Amino acid sequence: MAVRLPPLGELAPVAGVRLATACAGIKQRQRDDLAVIELADGCEVAGVFTRNAFRAPPVIMAESRIRSGNPRALLINSGNANAATGTSGRDDAAALCDHLAQCLGPDVSGESVLPFSTGVIGERLPVDAMRSAIEQAVPRLAPDGWANAARAIMTTDTAPKGESARIEVDGRPVTITGIAKGSGMIKPDMATMLAFLCCDAAVSGPVLQEMTAEVADRSFNRVTVDGDTSTNDSFVVCATGQAGNAEITGSGQARQELKAGLLAVAGALAERLVRDGEGATRFVTVLVRGGATEAECLKVAYTVAESPLVKTALFAGDPNWGRFCMAIGRAGIENLDPGAVSLALDEVVIARAGLVADDYDEASAAEVMGRDEYTVDIDLGRGACSETVWTTDLSYEYVRINAEYRS
Amino acid sequence: MAVRLPPLGELAPVAGVRLATACAGIKQRQRDDLAVIELADGCEVAGVFTRNAFRAPPVIMAESRIRSGNPRALLINSGNANAATGTSGRDDAAALCDHLAQCLGPDVSGESVLPFSTGVIGERLPVDAMRSAIEQAVPRLAPDGWANAARAIMTTDTAPKGESARIEVDGRPVTITGIAKGSGMIKPDMATMLAFLCCDAAVSGPVLQEMTAEVADRSFNRVTVDGDTSTNDSFVVCATGQAGNAEITGSGQARQELKAGLLAVAGALAERLVRDGEGATRFVTVLVRGGATEAECLKVAYTVAESPLVKTALFAGDPNWGRFCMAIGRAGIENLDPGAVSLALDEVVIARAGLVADDYDEASAAEVMGRDEYTVDIDLGRGACSETVWTTDLSYEYVRINAEYRS
Repeated sequence: MAVRLPPLGELAPVAGVRLATACAGIKQRQRDDLAVIELADGCEVAGVFTRNAFRAPPVIMAESRIRSGNPRALLINSGNANAATGTSGRDDAAALCDHLAQCLGPDVSGESVLPFSTGVIGERLPVDAMRSAIEQAVPRLAPDGWANAARAIMTTDTAPKGESARIEVDGRPVTITGIAKGSGMIKPDMATMLAFLCCDAAVSGPVLQEMTAEVADRSFNRVTVDGDTSTNDSFVVCATGQAGNAEITGSGQARQELKAGLLAVAGALAERLVRDGEGATRFVTVLVRGGATEAECLKVAYTVAESPLVKTALFAGDPNWGRFCMAIGRAGIENLDPGAVSLALDEVVIARAGLVADDYDEASAAEVMGRDEYTVDIDLGRGACSETVWTTDLSYEYVRINAEYRS
Repeated sequence: MAVRLPPLGELAPVAGVRLATACAGIKQRQRDDLAVIELADGCEVAGVFTRNAFRAPPVIMAESRIRSGNPRALLINSGNANAATGTSGRDDAAALCDHLAQCLGPDVSGESVLPFSTGVIGERLPVDAMRSAIEQAVPRLAPDGWANAARAIMTTDTAPKGESARIEVDGRPVTITGIAKGSGMIKPDMATMLAFLCCDAAVSGPVLQEMTAEVADRSFNRVTVDGDTSTNDSFVVCATGQAGNAEITGSGQARQELKAGLLAVAGALAERLVRDGEGATRFVTVLVRGGATEAECLKVAYTVAESPLVKTALFAGDPNWGRFCMAIGRAGIENLDPGAVSLALDEVVIARAGLVADDYDEASAAEVMGRDEYTVDIDLGRGACSETVWTTDLSYEYVRINAEYRS
């Protein structure tokens, strides 16, 4: 049901990064569900994590281990989120990290392994099966394991998601490759999703952390499928420092170059997440312009993008545009003047200044809403700010996927 | 698809109130879609209206005409919300009110008629057809027209909704009868809710307005998020003063008696709305206890009740209780300690203090979630406040109804 989701392109190896996968049979028996990403010594790692109060034990552990420095490996599993598992969940994650560290060699400590889990909440990890899978994976570690890793971290995703970019930083070629999973519960703060980006640029830890937060805010934090956020969302960026550029430690052009590259890859991954939204039949851009502040534009954009009444109209392809007005009107914008609001779908103007446009033609609007990809363009008519979010429709298939997820 | 929606009981006439209906063919040709409620001279009328920025012209007009006093009739239509229609919509509503006033007689002015509309947004009312329907309705006005009026105001409702109560106020018998429409309570922003209550008690205008707001907050506002409403939501209470009690002008026992009666009728109507939620297959009570404030309990209750992931799990009857944790965790409660949160479904305890209960048995939880009616009981473990909201599941049928609403 994905909407024009492009096939996985070539995922370029990143110097200093090796990957491998194996099948632990957590939920999948037909494909690998465990991935290891090994990082060369001396990498910098940054991360942005879910703000859900029910953060899963691996999230708490990964964030704290990034802060304490020198991460050497990422251990990721799909099928089980290791969430709402308390101290047992923490012990399980720690034991598996220790085991991976032992398999990787004597210079890797358990504390330098970051755990990530995604899947069902409230069940213990099958630790023994995962130990065996780790043992199978480690000997397979290779620089070209990105596509397999993208597949291993999938849950309800219909396709693996990865992107690569080759850019120049400070005149030196830099490679950025990233993978992500997630197709529901996508929303800011953060989305229910896992994303891992690696680059070979040299950048200080503090600068990398700042860039990671900025990039998340402009990519994964701009997409929404159903407004739900998860216990396990994590976005991690690793920089191996092997590209030979002078280490980026402050502002300046090199930092801008690297950030642009990271944003390009993260943005493309975020778009893939929406295109693969659960049950999605349309990829819809909600553009809110003319706002007094960016914050109010975002508020309107999310209210529209998450309204079940709007989303079912998107699914039906029905230009029942009153539903857009309803959603704009309930976004909670102080002193919003409906008489200043304009609305268009791609090139078809529906309303100008709160009233149906004289030249509005429902057949044209229906034609736009029959497209599998279009923009809902809202002008609040009260300022110069604008914001954009991407979303999908609400289909029968969304209900089926989420009603049957565990069975 | 309604969940144990009781059949319409007897709706008792209220002294001073007459009702009639007719078919204007707005959207329905098989049944009446226009209702007139005539009030005797000297009634007090109070109302609570949507806070949506895109308030429809009839809403603005009804609220202002209540304030200016002496309303003599309510004119209600289904099938067209007369929303996002600007000055034309206002003119249409005013013309129809004038016409009804003329039909009712020389002592009724156009300004004493309150207009209410519900249905599709953005289309002009069929004024001529509605004029004819008004002319047909007026000669039929009768005290026992409540059930027909309940039917005439329906949109996607599967059944008419009405309630009556006979109470004592100040030792005098008082009759309260109300009708309501609305079934889009899957997420409360979705459909217009209209509710009209009449009683024969004598009560001053200011006291009636206060009571109406208090009653709304404990009934319809427990199925409709505060400030999160459609373009046309209206809750109107009329008091004809013909019961013979001493006019209620301040606090005291008579006021409490009347308010309890109004709340009983409004609460029962609100429950009917949820039971008839679009596509609903379950009626679920979300009880949040142990909160530091009532506001935070409500915030958690609404986040759980509106989460698409929770709602699809309710539909599936799947005790995938991690989704409850996810929703509680993203409700935005400051410093919420997941380790203090407990969760039960009816009598089955799932989690105590953030961890799966030792005696938790998934089969028992599945049995509860197979019921068509149960309580999700959440204890935040941080205070003594509690709040309750009522909701439904998210089914295929919900998507069908809302995707096909206009066609």
